[in-house]
Amino acid sequence: MYQDHHASFAVSSHGNTVPSPSHAPLRVGLLGLGTVGAGTYTVLQRNADVIAARTGRRIEIAMVAVRNLARASVIVGPEVSLVDDPFQVVNHPDIDVVVEVIGGTTVARDLVLQAIANGKHVVTANKALLAVHGSEIFAAAQAQGVVVAYEGAVAVSIPIIKTLREGLTANRIEWVAGIINGTTNYILSEMRTKGVSFADALADAQRLGYAEADPTFDVEGIDAAHKLTLLAANAFGVPVQFDKVYVQGITALDSVDIAFAEQLGYRVKLLGIAKRHDHGLELRVHPTLVAADHLLAQVNGSMNAVMVKSDAAGVTMYYGAGAGAEQTASAVIADLVDLCRTCGTAHRHRVPSLAFQPGAVVALPVTGMADVVTGFYLRLDVSLAAQTVPTLLSHFAQAHVPVQQLEVLEHPGDKALNAIIFLTAPTQERVLRGVLAGLEQLPMVRGAVKAIRIEALA
Amino acid sequence: MYQDHHASFAVSSHGNTVPSPSHAPLRVGLLGLGTVGAGTYTVLQRNADVIAARTGRRIEIAMVAVRNLARASVIVGPEVSLVDDPFQVVNHPDIDVVVEVIGGTTVARDLVLQAIANGKHVVTANKALLAVHGSEIFAAAQAQGVVVAYEGAVAVSIPIIKTLREGLTANRIEWVAGIINGTTNYILSEMRTKGVSFADALADAQRLGYAEADPTFDVEGIDAAHKLTLLAANAFGVPVQFDKVYVQGITALDSVDIAFAEQLGYRVKLLGIAKRHDHGLELRVHPTLVAADHLLAQVNGSMNAVMVKSDAAGVTMYYGAGAGAEQTASAVIADLVDLCRTCGTAHRHRVPSLAFQPGAVVALPVTGMADVVTGFYLRLDVSLAAQTVPTLLSHFAQAHVPVQQLEVLEHPGDKALNAIIFLTAPTQERVLRGVLAGLEQLPMVRGAVKAIRIEALA
Repeated sequence: MYQDHHASFAVSSHGNTVPSPSHAPLRVGLLGLGTVGAGTYTVLQRNADVIAARTGRRIEIAMVAVRNLARASVIVGPEVSLVDDPFQVVNHPDIDVVVEVIGGTTVARDLVLQAIANGKHVVTANKALLAVHGSEIFAAAQAQGVVVAYEGAVAVSIPIIKTLREGLTANRIEWVAGIINGTTNYILSEMRTKGVSFADALADAQRLGYAEADPTFDVEGIDAAHKLTLLAANAFGVPVQFDKVYVQGITALDSVDIAFAEQLGYRVKLLGIAKRHDHGLELRVHPTLVAADHLLAQVNGSMNAVMVKSDAAGVTMYYGAGAGAEQTASAVIADLVDLCRTCGTAHRHRVPSLAFQPGAVVALPVTGMADVVTGFYLRLDVSLAAQTVPTLLSHFAQAHVPVQQLEVLEHPGDKALNAIIFLTAPTQERVLRGVLAGLEQLPMVRGAVKAIRIEALA
Repeated sequence: MYQDHHASFAVSSHGNTVPSPSHAPLRVGLLGLGTVGAGTYTVLQRNADVIAARTGRRIEIAMVAVRNLARASVIVGPEVSLVDDPFQVVNHPDIDVVVEVIGGTTVARDLVLQAIANGKHVVTANKALLAVHGSEIFAAAQAQGVVVAYEGAVAVSIPIIKTLREGLTANRIEWVAGIINGTTNYILSEMRTKGVSFADALADAQRLGYAEADPTFDVEGIDAAHKLTLLAANAFGVPVQFDKVYVQGITALDSVDIAFAEQLGYRVKLLGIAKRHDHGLELRVHPTLVAADHLLAQVNGSMNAVMVKSDAAGVTMYYGAGAGAEQTASAVIADLVDLCRTCGTAHRHRVPSLAFQPGAVVALPVTGMADVVTGFYLRLDVSLAAQTVPTLLSHFAQAHVPVQQLEVLEHPGDKALNAIIFLTAPTQERVLRGVLAGLEQLPMVRGAVKAIRIEALA
């Protein structure tokens, strides 16, 4: 430590020296040379010196399987063997690790299982594949004594799988809640800051490359559900169970509710939430009101963040980009470095695939939404009269649902109507649905009540 | 995935089963049973089932060295051997790992070196010890083939050492900037929200247990500098070099500047910053203005956060408690789990002590503060006349220092004076000091100019 203001130069060299690796290089076969594949190749080349300085071993992309060989030969150097049949890669005896970045759940599944059968380690960023076929794939890997690593499957720039599997191992995890889809977070940020509709924000996102031509997986919450499946498995020691996740996307969100929520001190985020209770597990993806001063509410644009509540560490949060060529490459290469550091030893399975020892991974009952307890934002479009508010409130009171905040606002579309916003205390969803059914039968209430769940996450 | 609203219960059991560990337990000797030591014992007991389910091996605190044996026997169970000489623990043949949580840099150093000499792994949360004696300790560990793990030394609840050493290994790290001292962040949060003085906020913090009776290490920035030393070493592959860190604490901060900064859209945080340039490294701890909508500005109270900018992953951030008995235990136990997963194998040194292979750890020249470039917040107390502002601005113009914002405010203490705030563009500190020297000689300027650095961190 020095506290004066004079320069203090160490007598030393100008960079990290690359150690001459004591082992043969890790030979990687890459399946796919799209955005992520090309990004992985680029980062491995550009940062070869610093990666070798950390790892003590070179990582070499030896083979690449691509559809278009001519196009690929412009991207990779002449030292790489290009083939158009991916099975040539997974069956090649000189390949140590197969990196699967072609996506999808059909051919990718066949390739991954074949690679495992051939005794090769696998690194993949394919969340859909693992969320759906993870149990089969992890069991095959266990039986063959190889590793299937997948840091790039969730919130790519953030090492959240490593954090859950290795960083928080002392803890009983209570819940995980995350903004784990950048496309929807970008759209919601645009709807909030510019007041535009979902359709317009989606069109913008597509123009800018934040959303795909077919945005279904993102905007319907399916991509977030894939990632939540993997987060929950690692947090709680349960198998992947994508079919048990409740999923509600953002396509039905009205920008007026985002604006009203903002007026009441909240922001709307698409959250993936996994909670452990004494009686089971909640697994759900849905739009959620979060207090505007909550850290998750500050996560804007296409950024991701995962918050974890655990008994010893308390609340921790992990923030970064959730997509991108080099961001995903960062995760894929971290998995390769991990393999360099252990493969070829008896401790290849140093960390179990799903954080818990295979024998300790046990399914827990998943709570149906009717039994889930959250707060609710409710918008009722009403023709306002003297008795309107007392009448509406009596329905809440009869069901013992505490109303914590009530605002009567102008209806943005119809001057003859008002919008009344109710924020409820945490309430079992079954009870809330009963209240809504009653409210929607009242003649003063026009159309369906708009309901968005609220989470405190403290 | 399901989208209906009916409960869907898996037919399964009610918790994780504890696997019968296939190995002998990891036998831990604990040095110290203060806050952290007791917290570690408590969490290991409470979460034994879930830790064993993750690890496949039991972690057993076999011996504890304490000053007060009677007091200790109330905390730990009868299965633990209590001794009052810590050297009995480090010399005991049955102990696999020594956990050092007594603190300090004298006896702790002797104990850690003796444990290493005896071939025992060491887990420590002692940032001062490693920041000052790390080179000696890591070299001894390397020579003996044992691990010295220290996740608990920095921002305890967040696995930031693991993130730097293992999660971001693909990246060339550009900078690390963190709120890494909870005491000072609590004091600064209180000064901002309540407008109280540093002295009053410190007294409050001491009453509430956020600050120690002798707060010097915290409020003078020394604790943050210890942690920054470790972060920088892991980020850049340089040795620990605490003596090269520029350190400025928060004791001289005036609450009026925190209030003025707030009016201008900024918050004041004590940041530890390590930046890599082509020509060397910046290592500095000082109060810093950060834009109010920056994620680091949202880190309030005693919480910590570390932001990392790297070339592939981009900006990522890690947030959580920086102190506390169980929060520190979370880190200490994660290190023990890591040891369970590798020790007894040839891969005990799976991850190098400072992220880079020992041969690749190379000192870089540390840039003196005169050469560091930051923006500046400047407060000049002046007796205002017609020519005051043009005269002051001419000094900036002559030195080619761009003023980006200027506010003339009422002086909070002296009605005859005004406070003029200048925010400058990023400027080399040597140049800025020249401007300040000139300004302070002007008769209209009363007293010394108050200067606080500004960082964009984008």
